[in-house]
Amino acid sequence: MIALENDYSEGAHPQILKRLAEINLEQNSGYCCDRYCKSAAEKIKQACACPDAEVFFLVGGTQANQVVIDTMLAPYEGVVSAQTGHVNSHEAGAIEFTGHKVLEIPQHEGKIFASELKEFAAHFWQDGNHEHMVFPGMVYISHPTEYGTLYSKKELEEIAQVCHEYKMPLYLDGARLAYGLAAPGTDINLPDIAQLCDVFYIGGTKCGAFFGEAVVFTKHNMPQYFVTRVKQHGALLAKGHILGIQFDTLFTDGLYFTLGAHAIRLAQVLRNGFIDAGFKLYIDSPTNQQFVELPDTILQKLTERGIVYRFWEKNAPDKTVVRFVTSWATKEENVEKLVSVVKELMTGCVK
Amino acid sequence: MIALENDYSEGAHPQILKRLAEINLEQNSGYCCDRYCKSAAEKIKQACACPDAEVFFLVGGTQANQVVIDTMLAPYEGVVSAQTGHVNSHEAGAIEFTGHKVLEIPQHEGKIFASELKEFAAHFWQDGNHEHMVFPGMVYISHPTEYGTLYSKKELEEIAQVCHEYKMPLYLDGARLAYGLAAPGTDINLPDIAQLCDVFYIGGTKCGAFFGEAVVFTKHNMPQYFVTRVKQHGALLAKGHILGIQFDTLFTDGLYFTLGAHAIRLAQVLRNGFIDAGFKLYIDSPTNQQFVELPDTILQKLTERGIVYRFWEKNAPDKTVVRFVTSWATKEENVEKLVSVVKELMTGCVK
Amino acid sequence: MIALENDYSEGAHPQILKRLAEINLEQNSGYCCDRYCKSAAEKIKQACACPDAEVFFLVGGTQANQVVIDTMLAPYEGVVSAQTGHVNSHEAGAIEFTGHKVLEIPQHEGKIFASELKEFAAHFWQDGNHEHMVFPGMVYISHPTEYGTLYSKKELEEIAQVCHEYKMPLYLDGARLAYGLAAPGTDINLPDIAQLCDVFYIGGTKCGAFFGEAVVFTKHNMPQYFVTRVKQHGALLAKGHILGIQFDTLFTDGLYFTLGAHAIRLAQVLRNGFIDAGFKLYIDSPTNQQFVELPDTILQKLTERGIVYRFWEKNAPDKTVVRFVTSWATKEENVEKLVSVVKELMTGCVK
Amino acid sequence: MIALENDYSEGAHPQILKRLAEINLEQNSGYCCDRYCKSAAEKIKQACACPDAEVFFLVGGTQANQVVIDTMLAPYEGVVSAQTGHVNSHEAGAIEFTGHKVLEIPQHEGKIFASELKEFAAHFWQDGNHEHMVFPGMVYISHPTEYGTLYSKKELEEIAQVCHEYKMPLYLDGARLAYGLAAPGTDINLPDIAQLCDVFYIGGTKCGAFFGEAVVFTKHNMPQYFVTRVKQHGALLAKGHILGIQFDTLFTDGLYFTLGAHAIRLAQVLRNGFIDAGFKLYIDSPTNQQFVELPDTILQKLTERGIVYRFWEKNAPDKTVVRFVTSWATKEENVEKLVSVVKELMTGCVK
Repeated sequence: MIALENDYSEGAHPQILKRLAEINLEQNSGYCCDRYCKSAAEKIKQACACPDAEVFFLVGGTQANQVVIDTMLAPYEGVVSAQTGHVNSHEAGAIEFTGHKVLEIPQHEGKIFASELKEFAAHFWQDGNHEHMVFPGMVYISHPTEYGTLYSKKELEEIAQVCHEYKMPLYLDGARLAYGLAAPGTDINLPDIAQLCDVFYIGGTKCGAFFGEAVVFTKHNMPQYFVTRVKQHGALLAKGHILGIQFDTLFTDGLYFTLGAHAIRLAQVLRNGFIDAGFKLYIDSPTNQQFVELPDTILQKLTERGIVYRFWEKNAPDKTVVRFVTSWATKEENVEKLVSVVKELMTGCVK
Repeated sequence: MIALENDYSEGAHPQILKRLAEINLEQNSGYCCDRYCKSAAEKIKQACACPDAEVFFLVGGTQANQVVIDTMLAPYEGVVSAQTGHVNSHEAGAIEFTGHKVLEIPQHEGKIFASELKEFAAHFWQDGNHEHMVFPGMVYISHPTEYGTLYSKKELEEIAQVCHEYKMPLYLDGARLAYGLAAPGTDINLPDIAQLCDVFYIGGTKCGAFFGEAVVFTKHNMPQYFVTRVKQHGALLAKGHILGIQFDTLFTDGLYFTLGAHAIRLAQVLRNGFIDAGFKLYIDSPTNQQFVELPDTILQKLTERGIVYRFWEKNAPDKTVVRFVTSWATKEENVEKLVSVVKELMTGCVK
Repeated sequence: MIALENDYSEGAHPQILKRLAEINLEQNSGYCCDRYCKSAAEKIKQACACPDAEVFFLVGGTQANQVVIDTMLAPYEGVVSAQTGHVNSHEAGAIEFTGHKVLEIPQHEGKIFASELKEFAAHFWQDGNHEHMVFPGMVYISHPTEYGTLYSKKELEEIAQVCHEYKMPLYLDGARLAYGLAAPGTDINLPDIAQLCDVFYIGGTKCGAFFGEAVVFTKHNMPQYFVTRVKQHGALLAKGHILGIQFDTLFTDGLYFTLGAHAIRLAQVLRNGFIDAGFKLYIDSPTNQQFVELPDTILQKLTERGIVYRFWEKNAPDKTVVRFVTSWATKEENVEKLVSVVKELMTGCVK
Repeated sequence: MIALENDYSEGAHPQILKRLAEINLEQNSGYCCDRYCKSAAEKIKQACACPDAEVFFLVGGTQANQVVIDTMLAPYEGVVSAQTGHVNSHEAGAIEFTGHKVLEIPQHEGKIFASELKEFAAHFWQDGNHEHMVFPGMVYISHPTEYGTLYSKKELEEIAQVCHEYKMPLYLDGARLAYGLAAPGTDINLPDIAQLCDVFYIGGTKCGAFFGEAVVFTKHNMPQYFVTRVKQHGALLAKGHILGIQFDTLFTDGLYFTLGAHAIRLAQVLRNGFIDAGFKLYIDSPTNQQFVELPDTILQKLTERGIVYRFWEKNAPDKTVVRFVTSWATKEENVEKLVSVVKELMTGCVK
């Protein structure tokens, strides 16, 4: 079986396991006040070229989104998001659960446009009735997006500019950030993100850790009594040093970037394999998620060969969009095998 | 000054004031357990031809929407609404405040299409990932809509059918119901609504009362311990009999329908006046809200003549959509004056 | 029937009804932006000797408590209250509904002690673990309390001092404030309350109005975008001028104080009648609620004579504490009748 | 340094680390649908002698309490808890955050009395006004309690009986359950708990795991769409198999019980050491938390010797209650060292 359906099927990078074992019986302070959380935070601040950043570690992505958005918004504010944003579509209403509206704007291959964001904000403030509406209090973007796409530096600057103009902090969901940073052609690096965003998180769960997301507040803007609010959300890990040691490892000797590069290299092999075989990409993603439009007959044969993908959507009676995902843990041989199967099947089809 | 900007500027119909005075020093039980609430409920059930209905009285429209939707949804469910639905756009996030998402679907002159509703619900249940999504647990429509439009009986039946099929109770916001029921050409009456909807409210605030909305549960489906939940929302009126006496009056001798008819007659005069003068309706509304596209030069002159309207939106550099509203309290002479001013201005423009 | 069970059974003082009728067909701006709300606010500020106060009108007491407490607390804060405080015991969890804990401290005939409040706050801040606890962010008191008792000026000053020291705004629930201000022996007046409290509400529902509570922020501390938050709670009255005209009337020519004095005079008659007849007061209340301990045999006879009281609690196998309440609307003849019945019954018992 | 301040300072039992390493690169389904979660659930059901139980794995204790209580309560219900219950005092308002009140009843060395619980519930239902109050919808107990004490089987049966009578599900917080089950003299085992409680959780974080709590629903009463609600709370772990493998290990070959017994043996050594040295126990705890009353002079010397304890409370000008905690990871030599230091200091004092 070759499973390429997602990037959270395996455990953690062996180096993380090794360090967990090394410190296993050490005694550490609880609730992220330990030496490893401190060390990891320092390394992250350095990688972000943002010495004043405040870093806190949470367990998962939905949790990070919920805690960050709820604690940064005023009660009368909502968060602006692309219609396809994870917070708007696949978190079971975790944002609304905390009393805040997700304010939808259009998506373009998963991204928002600065122009449309500006129009939305301007429209709100010009509306004479806006005291009866939800205030746009924050902007949520994902990078890579839910479709694997990336913002260019120029796009991110324009969005940040609109955010600044309308006093909406910019929040970047980096669940798959390692893969975004390693993508071919991207002109955005961690320091850019730290500079342009007010808060973001560096994804661990999908990028080499057992679990964990490092939330980075870049503008002296960590909400007051943040630990209390994390606790109130049920999101404070007792043994916080387990988060600390993982991120400390990921940000030692550039491991986070190495893992990203590995997944991207294999994603490109996969992508090119499909193109060479004559298939159409549903979206041309430069990152570790690849969306391909495949005839149902081909899909059935892939399944028969033990290849596991994620159904995305039907886009024709006899065609389906599916997602293939690589990760830090993906084996080169599996990707090569998939590519060779695809070629073989395509040749068979043509005959 | 001729103010036609909304339908909640005046007090209450004189008959309501008279009855309030008559019973003023009577002692009544609190919290809607009094004789007038009981009598009003009986009259409403009769008007709805729904003897088993359960009726409860709340103070305002946003409050009614919040209480009804929150108490009828399961915690993991959201309410489906047109993008322009009042709950989605003009209630300051009152639904999200209670933890529920408003699930947007497209609007067509303020209405939703049964076909698109069905597609939305079907898509949800077919999604293998729907346990990570907000469940569509209820459908919200307004009748008349925020654009003054009305559903036909056939449209309402189709929507109810989809709701039934996907086990989503249908909720109708009748803030302006009196005006919908009196509209020319409508084939929907109160018994139709009671039969097709699972819950709805009969608007009092905009239809002759000082305040008050009568919530009607039609299928033995009033949420358990409803009084407690109303109290929990801060929405239980101590002197409930003040609500009871108002609705008892409105549903005595057909007053509610008489008031609706008055507003509609004047809205038609106003509508025809604009058409005769050569102006374009932004939306052809059969109810008490009229949306007209007017040149800014005309608007300025209307303002100079003391005519007060509601800005709706700019739809061209030199044109604006504005709203004129009639109500139970609108004076015929004011509407005639407006029509004559409009004609005069138009003639002036043509010259 | 002589009903003395509560102070919200009748409608409104006739003068209010008269003014409502006078302005009934006037057109007024919505949402408490009208001339009557403005005028009422001015009169209240003057009565409070607090020209900088900000005044907003809400419909009911639980609603006022919920909106004020939720909007003034930070999300990680709770409100300190006596165990018997209305917000803690009889509002169906309306405070917790908004996400905030009610932090109980002991009650003494319905009141809190400054010393115990100080101990509570000091204990919190001294606890090394307080980041895992709910922060005491506000103090709730009622005046009169749920037992009809009153704070002395000295007591209120001491509480205010503790609140100030620990940065907890002091909030006074004045649902029955008219009766507190008119009580014999009280040394607290409206300007004292405005000076010592950060926010309070002047009760209308139980003190002469159909409904309505005037929330007064005394320290330039009305929460930002308060109208939006009121709307979000479903608590914004469309026809706000109905609130305005009621409070404008109550604060014209001292009507509010006159109504309070009437109820207190009759409460004293009632109180003295019970004492003279040899009964024991459960609590010696100087306000309009009187709590008396009566033999069950007497209670049964009162019921037979058509006298309606409120059961409070059993405090012996053959005795019960009951509450009698006077109000602005109580008729002198009814109180006299009750007193005479009580005397007669007592004489009968003694025989 | 000898740190005995809590039971969550170290990592996990080496056997857990070993198995994590073994399966590290295996691919597993996400969100607790994997083989290890299934296997762990089976083993837990067997250990509970409750084949029909439903088991779900969460990350932490406050999270488990929040998710379980919120999903099992109706919106108008609160949870009854001892005043000292963790949910009432040390979770930053996580229960109120979800809209529910914690209904305090008295505590007795951390425990509640069935008689007082019954009185509370009976009082609620007898109150004619209970529709304006928070309904007692669930009972929370901890075992061991926050003071290390344990319920006897008879006490638990009596509480369960009251819960059953008043239709309040009984929920047991087993954050330190391993230590309760291994305590000398306890007559409660896992099957008893499964039989008497409606839901409980088996603590992993403090009992040998890196993190994790196994929630056990015993009466076919797992809330509908539980996965969705866990997601909505931000509490669903993507790599659920990391939870599964930990609990699978803990419930293989009785490891959970072995770890409990280790901590208890050392806690007894510690307890007896203090008694022998002539100190007074603040509470006589049979579990891994020991509360001792020590002169401040002794405490200072302990600190000088590198012994770390947890401050609990001052109970005299010159004495303090402190907590010492053992765990699965506590080293025998450290406990012996502490005992010998204590004896030495005491002898020194006596001189």
